[in-house]
Amino acid sequence: MSVPALPAVMLEPLVRAALLEDLGRAGDITTHAVVPAQARAETALVARQPGVVAGLDLAALAFRLIEPAIEIAVERPDGTRLQPGDRIATIDGPARGVLTAERVALNFLGHLSGVASATATLVDAVKGHKARICCTRKTMPGLRAVQKYAVRVGGGANHRLGLDDAVLIKDNHVAAAGGIKAAILAARAHVGHLVKIEVEVDTLSQLEEALAVGIDAVLLDNMKPDELAKAVRMIDGRAIAEASGSGVDLISAGWLTHSAAVLDIGLDWRN
Amino acid sequence: MSVPALPAVMLEPLVRAALLEDLGRAGDITTHAVVPAQARAETALVARQPGVVAGLDLAALAFRLIEPAIEIAVERPDGTRLQPGDRIATIDGPARGVLTAERVALNFLGHLSGVASATATLVDAVKGHKARICCTRKTMPGLRAVQKYAVRVGGGANHRLGLDDAVLIKDNHVAAAGGIKAAILAARAHVGHLVKIEVEVDTLSQLEEALAVGIDAVLLDNMKPDELAKAVRMIDGRAIAEASGSGVDLISAGWLTHSAAVLDIGLDWRN
Amino acid sequence: MSVPALPAVMLEPLVRAALLEDLGRAGDITTHAVVPAQARAETALVARQPGVVAGLDLAALAFRLIEPAIEIAVERPDGTRLQPGDRIATIDGPARGVLTAERVALNFLGHLSGVASATATLVDAVKGHKARICCTRKTMPGLRAVQKYAVRVGGGANHRLGLDDAVLIKDNHVAAAGGIKAAILAARAHVGHLVKIEVEVDTLSQLEEALAVGIDAVLLDNMKPDELAKAVRMIDGRAIAEASGSGVDLISAGWLTHSAAVLDIGLDWRN
Amino acid sequence: MSVPALPAVMLEPLVRAALLEDLGRAGDITTHAVVPAQARAETALVARQPGVVAGLDLAALAFRLIEPAIEIAVERPDGTRLQPGDRIATIDGPARGVLTAERVALNFLGHLSGVASATATLVDAVKGHKARICCTRKTMPGLRAVQKYAVRVGGGANHRLGLDDAVLIKDNHVAAAGGIKAAILAARAHVGHLVKIEVEVDTLSQLEEALAVGIDAVLLDNMKPDELAKAVRMIDGRAIAEASGSGVDLISAGWLTHSAAVLDIGLDWRN
Amino acid sequence: MSVPALPAVMLEPLVRAALLEDLGRAGDITTHAVVPAQARAETALVARQPGVVAGLDLAALAFRLIEPAIEIAVERPDGTRLQPGDRIATIDGPARGVLTAERVALNFLGHLSGVASATATLVDAVKGHKARICCTRKTMPGLRAVQKYAVRVGGGANHRLGLDDAVLIKDNHVAAAGGIKAAILAARAHVGHLVKIEVEVDTLSQLEEALAVGIDAVLLDNMKPDELAKAVRMIDGRAIAEASGSGVDLISAGWLTHSAAVLDIGLDWRN
Amino acid sequence: MSVPALPAVMLEPLVRAALLEDLGRAGDITTHAVVPAQARAETALVARQPGVVAGLDLAALAFRLIEPAIEIAVERPDGTRLQPGDRIATIDGPARGVLTAERVALNFLGHLSGVASATATLVDAVKGHKARICCTRKTMPGLRAVQKYAVRVGGGANHRLGLDDAVLIKDNHVAAAGGIKAAILAARAHVGHLVKIEVEVDTLSQLEEALAVGIDAVLLDNMKPDELAKAVRMIDGRAIAEASGSGVDLISAGWLTHSAAVLDIGLDWRN
Repeated sequence: MSVPALPAVMLEPLVRAALLEDLGRAGDITTHAVVPAQARAETALVARQPGVVAGLDLAALAFRLIEPAIEIAVERPDGTRLQPGDRIATIDGPARGVLTAERVALNFLGHLSGVASATATLVDAVKGHKARICCTRKTMPGLRAVQKYAVRVGGGANHRLGLDDAVLIKDNHVAAAGGIKAAILAARAHVGHLVKIEVEVDTLSQLEEALAVGIDAVLLDNMKPDELAKAVRMIDGRAIAEASGSGVDLISAGWLTHSAAVLDIGLDWRN
Repeated sequence: MSVPALPAVMLEPLVRAALLEDLGRAGDITTHAVVPAQARAETALVARQPGVVAGLDLAALAFRLIEPAIEIAVERPDGTRLQPGDRIATIDGPARGVLTAERVALNFLGHLSGVASATATLVDAVKGHKARICCTRKTMPGLRAVQKYAVRVGGGANHRLGLDDAVLIKDNHVAAAGGIKAAILAARAHVGHLVKIEVEVDTLSQLEEALAVGIDAVLLDNMKPDELAKAVRMIDGRAIAEASGSGVDLISAGWLTHSAAVLDIGLDWRN
Repeated sequence: MSVPALPAVMLEPLVRAALLEDLGRAGDITTHAVVPAQARAETALVARQPGVVAGLDLAALAFRLIEPAIEIAVERPDGTRLQPGDRIATIDGPARGVLTAERVALNFLGHLSGVASATATLVDAVKGHKARICCTRKTMPGLRAVQKYAVRVGGGANHRLGLDDAVLIKDNHVAAAGGIKAAILAARAHVGHLVKIEVEVDTLSQLEEALAVGIDAVLLDNMKPDELAKAVRMIDGRAIAEASGSGVDLISAGWLTHSAAVLDIGLDWRN
Repeated sequence: MSVPALPAVMLEPLVRAALLEDLGRAGDITTHAVVPAQARAETALVARQPGVVAGLDLAALAFRLIEPAIEIAVERPDGTRLQPGDRIATIDGPARGVLTAERVALNFLGHLSGVASATATLVDAVKGHKARICCTRKTMPGLRAVQKYAVRVGGGANHRLGLDDAVLIKDNHVAAAGGIKAAILAARAHVGHLVKIEVEVDTLSQLEEALAVGIDAVLLDNMKPDELAKAVRMIDGRAIAEASGSGVDLISAGWLTHSAAVLDIGLDWRN
Repeated sequence: MSVPALPAVMLEPLVRAALLEDLGRAGDITTHAVVPAQARAETALVARQPGVVAGLDLAALAFRLIEPAIEIAVERPDGTRLQPGDRIATIDGPARGVLTAERVALNFLGHLSGVASATATLVDAVKGHKARICCTRKTMPGLRAVQKYAVRVGGGANHRLGLDDAVLIKDNHVAAAGGIKAAILAARAHVGHLVKIEVEVDTLSQLEEALAVGIDAVLLDNMKPDELAKAVRMIDGRAIAEASGSGVDLISAGWLTHSAAVLDIGLDWRN
Repeated sequence: MSVPALPAVMLEPLVRAALLEDLGRAGDITTHAVVPAQARAETALVARQPGVVAGLDLAALAFRLIEPAIEIAVERPDGTRLQPGDRIATIDGPARGVLTAERVALNFLGHLSGVASATATLVDAVKGHKARICCTRKTMPGLRAVQKYAVRVGGGANHRLGLDDAVLIKDNHVAAAGGIKAAILAARAHVGHLVKIEVEVDTLSQLEEALAVGIDAVLLDNMKPDELAKAVRMIDGRAIAEASGSGVDLISAGWLTHSAAVLDIGLDWRN
């Protein structure tokens, strides 16, 4: 099922900033000098490796903000599984505009498709298990909203969007609060009724303490397989179980957003 | 030799944006609820894997913009080769501030150290050859200036900063201009006296045409080793030779900025 | 108990914008023409009516961004119950700076104290009941983060911060989804594990449907007292109950942020 | 008579900021999960209480920036007197877009209509007298231009727009300058020929001093009715008389912008 | 008498933008490569031609935003008449910072001193006459506030700051309104009590019409000397008279801000 | 030959900022009060003096951002040589919009045409010689990209765009580095392969030193004509020669951007 697009009002500032970063103080001097104003380009975004496409709205904005006359026909929308050679969209219009916007469009598209593809690979790996794949706050500065979107496009779920939409009590918070129970109670007393609370636990006794006081989710950290299995049995549906192992409800992976390799997508000339 | 720092006026907007992205509309609700205002943190940035550190100024800004009372003592400045366990800097101050800024600081530091480390690995690989390693315009949107900086920290050189500071004539430009010679002459007629011109060539005859009309640099694209060797002999110092193979002056690698994995750096509590 | 401050990085853009809005293109022409450069002001922020103070950090930033030499000594920090005549803080320094920043400082302080005071009045009104008071998304454009903060200062809780941190299914969503159950299941399938789901119900049968499928919170809308009482009994702790009547867990009030009157606070000259 | 609209270039930054504030980092997750992409909405903005409508351009921008396909037909433009049930405009288009933009549109519309309605109430109250109603600089930070516009829509006049477009000499300025006359002369010497000067006076002797040296307007502060009457006779048309009582030319009211309650306007589904 | 400084909150965004414009995406590569980190600069801003200095706050901000360790000692503040060779300020600190900020600092200082000097020349030319010199809205985009400030520093007065702080009825407005009287009455009915109204008149009969209905100021356009003299006698103090000739109260000159040449100020090394 | 336009994404922020600067907090109060909403304007941009037009895209944006219904038909595009009376473009549409945007449009157009015209005058003056005319970094803060564009429109070339796209070693750099050779070698070691290096030399022996180590360009500073002639012979094509005298390849002139007078262009009503 397709993931709803982010509104343009969220994407446009990112694309404008990326274009300005590339255009600098004189614009595309190569294209201006070398390509005649009347030259036309008929091109296509084409996958060079398998993966999941994400970020077409950003790529389209890059082309259209440079040259409104460019026409974009999407053939494989965000979320489509790609095979090498698959045509994603055609991009036709004045050659100057297409060449000037190309790199920024590909930078967004390649990176976000890389995130979506990495996510999809993990999702495939746990197919048949109940676990969902989710991302973390380990994101590229300035790109969190679109990276989180790409994770959703790849079939993953989002962990916290930031520091303010959920409570995640980690080891240092527990230490500062004076224990798991104290930390959870303090959190519950402070936050609104629509904020969930998750706590990181390293041991089964910490888990027991958290479950006793009541908790929405637990992050089972650094547990060995058999300990993890025990933890899941202890939880028994009373909280959402997150870990990097199996048997849990949720597997979070920071590398989806901080270290995913680009998906190789090219802009080929059809003429 | 150390790479000069970018002025804070270039870094501050990036760090402010990243902090706001993470703080959202209510700030760090976990820390606020759970950590007492008077709690102090004595922490250290510590390498968990070998690499080259880059981005300490951005990390420091993240901590100081959240809490000016945080004290940062850098022990291994940008450019230092790290071994696992190496202490990079100590970060001491109010625990709330340290915890709130931690993720943004690490996101910058981990990513830019990842770029610097990837660059250094390539630089090491060509040690003894004359080739320099350089990056491309395949960068993360919004982060080009700091990624280019990280490449320099890692011992690499920068290719173009954007579309406006040098001419790079690629195959589609050549096609639109009606040939290598026409493209180079058009470029030379248009650009200022401090702008260099590079042309991408696929064949030795294209290379010959470029050298005949005069060119600052050539990008030898998709050539087999023996063809590449011939090309280098043909050039014979008349232009800078860039390729992804050996024997050339310059090896460019897009993945340094679009696909480098994070360098694992943690914030450890010393107390 | 005191509510933790928002970091300056969140407040500074608001205060800078408000100052620029007031300074226009020539600054404070009255003060510049009339007040000697060397004149000093010794002033105090003083309550003229009972209430709860909120927004001192913003007021202080207004003064300091205009004139760093201004010294501010807070005597009654955010959250303090004020009586008429109570001194909140002293503001001493160059008279020009104090006069120029005064209005912007008071605009923030008066409005946010107004929001906090309105909240506190409601909180007092339900003292002894379990219900918490909370705000809505009916906020002044651009001021949501600080209004939400002021609600917390007044003893209230925050409802959703925006469209993205929790699900609130209203009547039109239910209609579009084809029923309460369908809407809740769709939401649960889409959102991350740290996102709570609330649904608005108008009837007891809708409530039954929601409870049957499982729900984090219900907004009991337009129910008569006896119907509301029945609803609360039906819920029986299985979900958080929100309404504008009594017996529930949460009473939300849009007017706290969209219609709260200013709290009258003046800047009096002590000399 | 209708008040000319502010150009979109002034409104768009406010609306974009308000939308981003509400959309956060993931957009409208409820609508995305629950409402089918193809669902359409046929809705109407409807008054729920009497008042004067203001802010339709901002509301329309909110809808169109989220979804350009939304069609807006205004039936009662800014400045229209509303009765409960009056239809202000129809808003038709994709249901997702309408639901996502609804709250931001209503936040602008409700607040600015509240300001216009409060102004109109005061204007009605002095009908038959020569006094005009005007606002102050006690505005919501960031919203001054649109609040001042709403006051005009409600039939009121604008006092100063900021610190730089007119001189208003208050008691502390007088004290710092060493008297009414000194202050007025200093102001006159400094400001341009298109800047008016107003002075606040507390006593008839201060008024006499101001009139003797010549002044564009006087703010009669804290005077009893009979003293005010004497003051108006003394002025005798030589200056504009502002006060909060009667007989004067201008009655200023800070609460129009700092404490006006929202005007209740809803978005009703017609289908 | 000195002109009060604009607050830093108004200047800082201009200086930050100018620095970023110059630093681009890699900063000052010359200085970084060539100047040792420990090199110090002891320099002075020195006038190379006669004039009036303006803009020192902006220049100082440029140096300090690049390098907080730079020390600036102003010897001849804004408004000082300069002779060639006069030292304006000393700028001492790390050589890299001084060299990097130099051009931006001089760009502000040279231009604004040019505006102030041009103004002062005109002011001197009318010394002994009652006429004041003033500027127009013909300003450099983005620099209006500081250009208007420079005019004040040069001894001139400001005309309108923008479209919103005074009414200036020009020939096309008169034509659209159906005559001078209709235009003035329409303006008076619409604007607040602190807004002055000026009308441009081309003939004595237009002037008569304006004076009859009452007007704050008249701009006598394209009148011959004898006609101008008659106009001034007709006005007889009933309105402020603005023209580009003599005998009037106000002489406005667009070139002060749109065509003033830079004042040549250099940064000399003292060591 | 025509100079390619800068993309709108680079111009729009400048035009929006300039409009907001002029509109202030209440917009065009004169036009709103005096000009009926239905009035139409049929106007033309007309040259009042000879020159070269530049900046039409910015002017057009100013009109269209205020009023999208305004129609603009360009008759003499950027780069056209103008004679007094030449019609540049027609601007037709609602009179209010045309009048409101007029000043900002003319401020851009007059200034940039002034820069282009000054450049063209210099270009004409060296016709027949090989020297090209170029600008410097002495630009108006915030306007560098469009001033550099105007220089190109006038037939000139651009020197460095900023501090980061080329190396220019000046006397103070040489002093800090310990000599011409040391400075050039340091630069060459640090910068990327697409960055050119220019050095400023005052004497023939400095020139010799620079040529010996190899250099892309030399700026011959403060040389007498015969010394300059010797320098050019010494260079003999081995480097680009820049100076303010003759015989060289490049003549740079700071006043093109810091002191060019406006080109007088008016907006005439055709009806």
